[in-house]
Amino acid sequence: MNEIVDRLHETVRFRLSHPLVQLEASGRHLHLSRADADRLLGPGVALTPVKELSQPGQFTCAERIRVTGPKGEFPALGIIGPERRQSQVELSATDALALGVKPPVRLSGDLAGTPGITLTGPAGSVTLDQGVMIAQRHIHMHPDYAARHHLTDRQVVSVRVWSDRGVTFNNVIIRISPDFATYMHIDYDEANACGFRKGMLGSIIV
Amino acid sequence: MNEIVDRLHETVRFRLSHPLVQLEASGRHLHLSRADADRLLGPGVALTPVKELSQPGQFTCAERIRVTGPKGEFPALGIIGPERRQSQVELSATDALALGVKPPVRLSGDLAGTPGITLTGPAGSVTLDQGVMIAQRHIHMHPDYAARHHLTDRQVVSVRVWSDRGVTFNNVIIRISPDFATYMHIDYDEANACGFRKGMLGSIIV
Repeated sequence: MNEIVDRLHETVRFRLSHPLVQLEASGRHLHLSRADADRLLGPGVALTPVKELSQPGQFTCAERIRVTGPKGEFPALGIIGPERRQSQVELSATDALALGVKPPVRLSGDLAGTPGITLTGPAGSVTLDQGVMIAQRHIHMHPDYAARHHLTDRQVVSVRVWSDRGVTFNNVIIRISPDFATYMHIDYDEANACGFRKGMLGSIIV
Repeated sequence: MNEIVDRLHETVRFRLSHPLVQLEASGRHLHLSRADADRLLGPGVALTPVKELSQPGQFTCAERIRVTGPKGEFPALGIIGPERRQSQVELSATDALALGVKPPVRLSGDLAGTPGITLTGPAGSVTLDQGVMIAQRHIHMHPDYAARHHLTDRQVVSVRVWSDRGVTFNNVIIRISPDFATYMHIDYDEANACGFRKGMLGSIIV
């Protein structure tokens, strides 16, 4: 009993003394360039927003894309809009194994040297030369939050979460922009590994 | 450049000052009681060892078992022998979702309150009342290693691993037995989340 109280006390003290960030688990998805959307969905066809995401202006779409790898496919992968400069397919390591691709762990947009894959939509197919990645865990951070806690863009921190599978994620990169809401993004492998529950908070360790 | 050298120096210093343990990733598998092996494989039919595992006396088997859940099945799940007191199915959270079961995170053998599942072998079927679990990460430890590093049975420690997805696993339980070789076991969700590579070492943090 004393041991439980001690541990609870330590947890509460730790959480009170470190900045908190809410975690979100990102499932596999893709982003499309306007040029690729033209080929897959039809010239000028707009993405249809279905649900707003926590990052301002980002939304899930009604349209679905078939993603075909050497060993498997996802017949109806979801798109996150709006269009981006480059098309990008974000998978977990588990997903990558199912498709038969070997993507590196990367930050969004850093696609040089990543493998390609074939996309198929209602209007046609596109074979990407590059764009498949496992998203590096990261924190989207608003400048107000960053200033309050003396954190800087590109700073690498650790984030500790409590659960029966509690982990401390090391090598977490902070991205700061006035366009961001403050959330940490992990993939489903990481979510499963840390006993993720919706609304879970992590403590930022500098 | 200086930053890289500093970080490397810190990593080396950390690794030199903490006990190291080799990590192994355990895929989904099951253990059978002799009574269930009789029903599934035939009365008195022995398990056929294929490959020795790192834990002395433990081995993979030639026989395969179909595991059927409410939402999916694994048609040929591997068995780890020899027989145990109770049958037990060890899944990752990803596997559990595919089968449609909701097992808790547990230590091996602690099966009270876990969900059951249906097993089918060449000689028949068994529906377990309980036995499906997600294995709690743990360290099998030989008493010599434990004594050298002043670690005790059931002690809860953290283990830090370095990779581009470096994490510190908290809530890692140590099990000590003269029958054990010293290895830390994680499942594939945890392996993917920490950038696991064969032979990877972790630093034990007390």
